[in-house]
Amino acid sequence: MKNKTRRLEIVRVSGAKANRQRDLVARESPVTILLNDVELVTLLCSPSDLENLAAGFLFGEGLINSRKEIKSIFADSKNGAVWVETKDGKKPQENLNAKRQVVTGCGKAFSFTNAALAKKTLKADSKFRMSASSVLPLMKDFQGRSEIYRKTGGVHSAGLANLKGIIYFSEDIGRHNAIDKVLGECLLKVVKTDRLVLVTSGRVSSDIVIKAGRSSIPIIVSKSAPTDLAVALARELGIAIVGFVRGSRMNVYSNEWRLSTKPRRGKIR
Amino acid sequence: MKNKTRRLEIVRVSGAKANRQRDLVARESPVTILLNDVELVTLLCSPSDLENLAAGFLFGEGLINSRKEIKSIFADSKNGAVWVETKDGKKPQENLNAKRQVVTGCGKAFSFTNAALAKKTLKADSKFRMSASSVLPLMKDFQGRSEIYRKTGGVHSAGLANLKGIIYFSEDIGRHNAIDKVLGECLLKVVKTDRLVLVTSGRVSSDIVIKAGRSSIPIIVSKSAPTDLAVALARELGIAIVGFVRGSRMNVYSNEWRLSTKPRRGKIR
Repeated sequence: MKNKTRRLEIVRVSGAKANRQRDLVARESPVTILLNDVELVTLLCSPSDLENLAAGFLFGEGLINSRKEIKSIFADSKNGAVWVETKDGKKPQENLNAKRQVVTGCGKAFSFTNAALAKKTLKADSKFRMSASSVLPLMKDFQGRSEIYRKTGGVHSAGLANLKGIIYFSEDIGRHNAIDKVLGECLLKVVKTDRLVLVTSGRVSSDIVIKAGRSSIPIIVSKSAPTDLAVALARELGIAIVGFVRGSRMNVYSNEWRLSTKPRRGKIR
Repeated sequence: MKNKTRRLEIVRVSGAKANRQRDLVARESPVTILLNDVELVTLLCSPSDLENLAAGFLFGEGLINSRKEIKSIFADSKNGAVWVETKDGKKPQENLNAKRQVVTGCGKAFSFTNAALAKKTLKADSKFRMSASSVLPLMKDFQGRSEIYRKTGGVHSAGLANLKGIIYFSEDIGRHNAIDKVLGECLLKVVKTDRLVLVTSGRVSSDIVIKAGRSSIPIIVSKSAPTDLAVALARELGIAIVGFVRGSRMNVYSNEWRLSTKPRRGKIR
């Protein structure tokens, strides 16, 4: 916790009262990922689990495909840098570089003109299903783990769950970073993800679906909303998006066969 | 509204019931900004106000400094592209390019080693103040305008306000984009921003403070939390961050002299 939050003096206003107090805020640090000694990207992130972050980022961007391609990975958290060396030692090309960095953070500009290629490289192929009724306790478990969020209100969280519960969990000031951290941890530990559920506190935009697709994740669960592009992509890729998981309610936006409930066909409004 | 939302068929689960229904989700589109015919960045955004988005993005990144540098700006919303031509016609350099794209979306890796330069180029110099009690109706007005959020839950919003109320407002699936759109609108309309308040639905990270600093915005108001780096930077730049504006409460994290309330000095916890 210590390196993820910082105590600052603030003025708390409540009605007509104003008091100087100390309060916790989430820490934010710039961290540069170097691939074979070439500076690839600088992410603003919560300064923890930097190896996982780098591995997840490189995997999500298609720059590495498996654990065995990595020769070494070293995080210098003091100076905000992670060095990743691959066995082939290939330096990222300048142009590819620019292209890649374009897509960082704000997300990847996925072209639907080549849906066939996307389906081939990103598809969630497993027949994994879960019951809709088990989504609710999963979200409750997920939210209960958000320690930094409870203390600061300033972070997103991401988790990976199997049918028994959450097995990997991460918090970060960026919703993309939190997801990269859990997926990167699986990559580094060589854990198969094609029967795991990705849980996120954040909105589900197309770049989140692409990250899930790269890891063959079959179901994305969010307490927030997806975009139309995310839903269209998830429908193509075989991924179920479950959004607005709140209380005993949720919306299933795609591949609802993965959620075992028998929908009574209602009137289309 | 029509081009900002899309109606999709979803399965709504409530307790043991599941019904097929139609529901609105926020639209998301990739939009490429071209500066003097060079592809600079592709943003995933809500497809509206693309000229404002491009102008705000270029200004925030320091690629243009004023309206008069722009020769022409043309948005092709159908194909997701905005062409910006500057009077000097200078093409962005490949290397600068890469550097800039690094900072997109996830935010700018601001170096505190050169705080003097930052203060010179980003400082909020005006003596602008507002009363703390007027922050609450401002936030209420702000939230009341969030039409797409109410319908989809999937967007962020940003506004610019003077002491009378909100004068510019924007919604976008990205919190950075929403801010770029309102600041870009001011740039294109040659509106001075050094006595305007930036209101955001999102978390305040350091890149948001840099965007505000570029526009000499004196106060940032958010219903959410700032990071430690954002607070440190705002303290340097003369910007007040007001966070967690909820009900009759708020936290002031920096430059509290801009909020006219007389803080009773309480015990430091």
